[in-house]
Amino acid sequence: MEMRRQDRLASREEALEYLRSAEVGYLSLSDSNVPYTVPLNFVLMGNSLYFHCAHVGRKLDILRKNPQCCFVVSFLDGIKPGDNACDYGAFFRSAIVMGTARWVEDQEEKISSLNALTAKHAERAFMPVNEQTAASVTVVAVDIESVSGKARKR
Amino acid sequence: MEMRRQDRLASREEALEYLRSAEVGYLSLSDSNVPYTVPLNFVLMGNSLYFHCAHVGRKLDILRKNPQCCFVVSFLDGIKPGDNACDYGAFFRSAIVMGTARWVEDQEEKISSLNALTAKHAERAFMPVNEQTAASVTVVAVDIESVSGKARKR
Repeated sequence: MEMRRQDRLASREEALEYLRSAEVGYLSLSDSNVPYTVPLNFVLMGNSLYFHCAHVGRKLDILRKNPQCCFVVSFLDGIKPGDNACDYGAFFRSAIVMGTARWVEDQEEKISSLNALTAKHAERAFMPVNEQTAASVTVVAVDIESVSGKARKR
Repeated sequence: MEMRRQDRLASREEALEYLRSAEVGYLSLSDSNVPYTVPLNFVLMGNSLYFHCAHVGRKLDILRKNPQCCFVVSFLDGIKPGDNACDYGAFFRSAIVMGTARWVEDQEEKISSLNALTAKHAERAFMPVNEQTAASVTVVAVDIESVSGKARKR
């Protein structure tokens, strides 16, 4: 479906940049047509978003039944004030990804995504993940099928 | 479903406080079992979350078919560093609401929610909304059925 406000459309490159720089993303799932969303740290690598979690939990239970995901990031860049309530508005940038979840079983992909996730948030050197430590978590990739960006710039 | 990490459970009062203070919330819907999420400005008033939008658009189209909502806010309070990748972690606070969307038709409720929404983001006095200006937008209330909070505090 085409975005209503075409004047606020951001480019695909901009949307990918929002996904690279956002620290938290919102992963949304649907469980028998009931939405369920969790905020999480993640990393964009290639055409996938990667997150990690414990081996059990509600999001994995839902994803097993329905791997379709919506993944959103946004930045609130400020509020546009006004004399009237109606003049108020928000400056923002956001990206919405539609994708499909996939359990990351390949060891090389699992380890490299965990290291990329850590590097994204680390401010100093760290001992990278190895096969043994990787085994303690589940890594899920959301393979991107579409990405759209929206922004209202100052 | 009970939260897996009971040690990270926040109280209902804390979760409501996160909803009061968050500037942006993530409204998630389900369209024929496909999740769809949008970030938006909102206000908590009584037992409902209120947001406004144009009279047409994708979220309203979906809500007409399925008014079930999941609404999430979160704060990233910092990253816990470590020597090993596995020692990294996030300090956060989040709230997840399950609720049902309702078109706000009552004029008094519509006007008071729009003024509350503006007041939440305004740093100075503003001319409040009246019946005429309220007519230019649609206001939707998400009536809260459950709210849960989660936090990892420093």
